[in-house]
Amino acid sequence: MSHDMSSAPTPPPRLARQLAFILELEQLKQVLRRSRLIGTDRRENSAEHSWHVAMLALVLAEYSAEPIDIGRVLELLLVHDIVEIDAGDTPVYDTAARANQATREQRAADRLFALLPDDQAATCRGMWDEFEEQATAEARFAKAVDRLMPVLQNYHNRGVTWHELGATLEHVLSVNRGPISAAAPAIWVYVEALLEDANARGYMA
Amino acid sequence: MSHDMSSAPTPPPRLARQLAFILELEQLKQVLRRSRLIGTDRRENSAEHSWHVAMLALVLAEYSAEPIDIGRVLELLLVHDIVEIDAGDTPVYDTAARANQATREQRAADRLFALLPDDQAATCRGMWDEFEEQATAEARFAKAVDRLMPVLQNYHNRGVTWHELGATLEHVLSVNRGPISAAAPAIWVYVEALLEDANARGYMA
Repeated sequence: MSHDMSSAPTPPPRLARQLAFILELEQLKQVLRRSRLIGTDRRENSAEHSWHVAMLALVLAEYSAEPIDIGRVLELLLVHDIVEIDAGDTPVYDTAARANQATREQRAADRLFALLPDDQAATCRGMWDEFEEQATAEARFAKAVDRLMPVLQNYHNRGVTWHELGATLEHVLSVNRGPISAAAPAIWVYVEALLEDANARGYMA
Repeated sequence: MSHDMSSAPTPPPRLARQLAFILELEQLKQVLRRSRLIGTDRRENSAEHSWHVAMLALVLAEYSAEPIDIGRVLELLLVHDIVEIDAGDTPVYDTAARANQATREQRAADRLFALLPDDQAATCRGMWDEFEEQATAEARFAKAVDRLMPVLQNYHNRGVTWHELGATLEHVLSVNRGPISAAAPAIWVYVEALLEDANARGYMA
């Protein structure tokens, strides 16, 4: 902010750190993904995407292959893209960018979660680590819905992003099969048919 | 979608309804609020706002005046603006628009949640009703954070939306005091000081 905040009211120190984090989160609305909103040319941002995949989890929880705590799934999805404020979005079909993604995102997590009071920094970092490590049923289901939404968007946008990134059916299947088929097998049956149909329609490279 | 979907793969009927709802949710990303993203002229959309207030709830839960189930608060906040797909956003300072807001939103809820399978339509409608009725601690805390975020945005944007809507300090205090002071009194102490400072800086009408 360029205007003089020197006389602005000062919250208690703990609340001040929480508000600093909350204000920083505003930046996630400016991080653009490769996906376009269905029926438009506008690129989706990571904040609205995070909301949408949380809704997917709420609606599709019954398809989880394992019992899940849906509240925990929601937490993981709400925080899973916050690191993109510093690291940017890394498309799953961009092999070059994915090579140093982990390093960039670890550095981002170190800075961003540390804005919070220490106890909450650890809690939120734990949510992000859990999503990344994929060691819990909640993290696996969260990743499945995170992969599902771009497939639906791309299909209904005639594969515009798949073409841009040169993604073939083989590549799209390999990126999505693992996360979706294990965590939500009944959804994978449909997604696999959708991807094959997309390829037959010329939506892929 | 204008292209021929006649040969598209058909999911099982229950999944088909769930996916129809999920695809409809894409529209919430096109519903514009009056708030601008901090430091920009871009109006915020209701999907990214929904994500942000869910994060506020996660970070600020300790300030709730009453014990709350944070998972339930997240659910209420994720669904609380879905009706705006049909009803549009209604600024809290727009008295004329607020007169028929309830009717417009009830009609929207009737259509939108009915896209889901009946059991889930009832569950999600119950979440929206709970937020609207303000009869639970979770609904009250959800509303408090929903009110807090636009205050922060407006303050850091030098009151651009307050000016546009002709909102005075008295009006802004009256809109926010009830929801925030009861559900999160320690946060209200700071917000009240912030609003008075905003007025002193000329950020209000």
